[in-house]
Amino acid sequence: MNRREFTRNLCGAAFGVAIVQASVAQQKSHEMGGMRHPMPDKPEEIAMLIYPGMTALDLIGPQQVFGYVMGANVHLVAKTKDIVVSDTGVGVLPSRTFADCPSVVDILVVPGGGKGTITLMNDDQTLDFLSEHAKSARFVTSVCSGSLVLGAAGLLRGYKATSHWAVRDILPLLGAELVTNRVVQDRTRITSGGITAGIDFGLRIAALLRGDDYARALELTLEYDPQPPFGSGTPEKAPANIEKMTRSMYEPLHVAAREAALVARKRWA
Amino acid sequence: MNRREFTRNLCGAAFGVAIVQASVAQQKSHEMGGMRHPMPDKPEEIAMLIYPGMTALDLIGPQQVFGYVMGANVHLVAKTKDIVVSDTGVGVLPSRTFADCPSVVDILVVPGGGKGTITLMNDDQTLDFLSEHAKSARFVTSVCSGSLVLGAAGLLRGYKATSHWAVRDILPLLGAELVTNRVVQDRTRITSGGITAGIDFGLRIAALLRGDDYARALELTLEYDPQPPFGSGTPEKAPANIEKMTRSMYEPLHVAAREAALVARKRWA
Repeated sequence: MNRREFTRNLCGAAFGVAIVQASVAQQKSHEMGGMRHPMPDKPEEIAMLIYPGMTALDLIGPQQVFGYVMGANVHLVAKTKDIVVSDTGVGVLPSRTFADCPSVVDILVVPGGGKGTITLMNDDQTLDFLSEHAKSARFVTSVCSGSLVLGAAGLLRGYKATSHWAVRDILPLLGAELVTNRVVQDRTRITSGGITAGIDFGLRIAALLRGDDYARALELTLEYDPQPPFGSGTPEKAPANIEKMTRSMYEPLHVAAREAALVARKRWA
Repeated sequence: MNRREFTRNLCGAAFGVAIVQASVAQQKSHEMGGMRHPMPDKPEEIAMLIYPGMTALDLIGPQQVFGYVMGANVHLVAKTKDIVVSDTGVGVLPSRTFADCPSVVDILVVPGGGKGTITLMNDDQTLDFLSEHAKSARFVTSVCSGSLVLGAAGLLRGYKATSHWAVRDILPLLGAELVTNRVVQDRTRITSGGITAGIDFGLRIAALLRGDDYARALELTLEYDPQPPFGSGTPEKAPANIEKMTRSMYEPLHVAAREAALVARKRWA
């Protein structure tokens, strides 16, 4: 494949249906912009769990990045083929079910959410799916409160991990060591902070898969030069009254998540 | 409604199905965290256009914010009720069609995309829908290359506007004055830069609707304290070779968008 063909393909990925030719994916590296980039022996399989009550932005932040990674197959995996409705009412169509998801995936991703996420923390079918696929996955990952589900499955025991600020203190109950960075990698586990952290997370995964220059090009494609209007994106940076009020909103969820964690850990503690 | 009831409702919006009580929305202000926040006389109707080939993150960035704005009705509007597939293969279910969208909406939003967006630039049915709803909308808005569709409909003539960096130079062909800020408001028109700019855009709209403190709480809810891994999110900030390569990927799209603009302007020029 010459540079022009490559460019056309990547443009296709960036701007239409992601057309990935097996011949490309079988190359171990390719030339782009005068640089060589690593390519996999075969397309990576990325399985993103979707479920009722998930936060759509937790899912779509990294999905948009992964979808632009030439040579990766991105699956939205649910229990059934039924439409999955997010916490703000977005209906998303699963592309795979637990039954027809590739048995070996390279990356397993669990997005967060609210009550739906807490329900998953004690959903045997979901925890079994995650545990089974985590055995062979290269990276077991999460965005936002998705780490509580990984933790409930026992998959964060002995690992450093993070979560949405409002519930991250629950992680130690699930055997994880809480680290409050925006993206935390500890060996095969990569967890990230609340909602928008999924974009930073996605770009870091892209860099792990294709190298820093490839990820730089994706960052530019996403025009990811954020300008938060208020600078109140963490409990530490927000004005005290805003932090207090927002935390109070999360209190019922925090209580429920803690209770779910205490039940879930009986599976493996 | 007392503070506890309000908290429960906002928590519901943040963490489950958005439960909005008309009684809440009919208040003109409410107390939150010791502060008063403006509330609308009636729920705002926010219509977000969805179409094949849209960039899902353009849509979901602001949708996640709007979905957390208590008292707003957020509609995903397509030509038909068929699943709409994004540029990276995410299937999204429309909640409304052109036919059953509220005839008067407060905010009209057009997300961007690639080839699908260019197709819309000369799609009469879509341009008519936008033109009709723009007449009464409080804000006519876009994320990323969605502004090219607004421009094609003649809705940016005489307005300052922006778009994704790779195609924004086309805006003057559509009668707009290009401004390269991340979010550009000119009277009733609010346009934003590429893909991830939709989050900044969404938070600014939230501030317009509910005040800065409310938007600060949403920024904290979204944990929007971004840490771009590479700092290459604009053509100016990216290394020269990355910028050159990425721009070359966009070249076919740029050519097509320019041609579409020249055709579209014949409708009204």
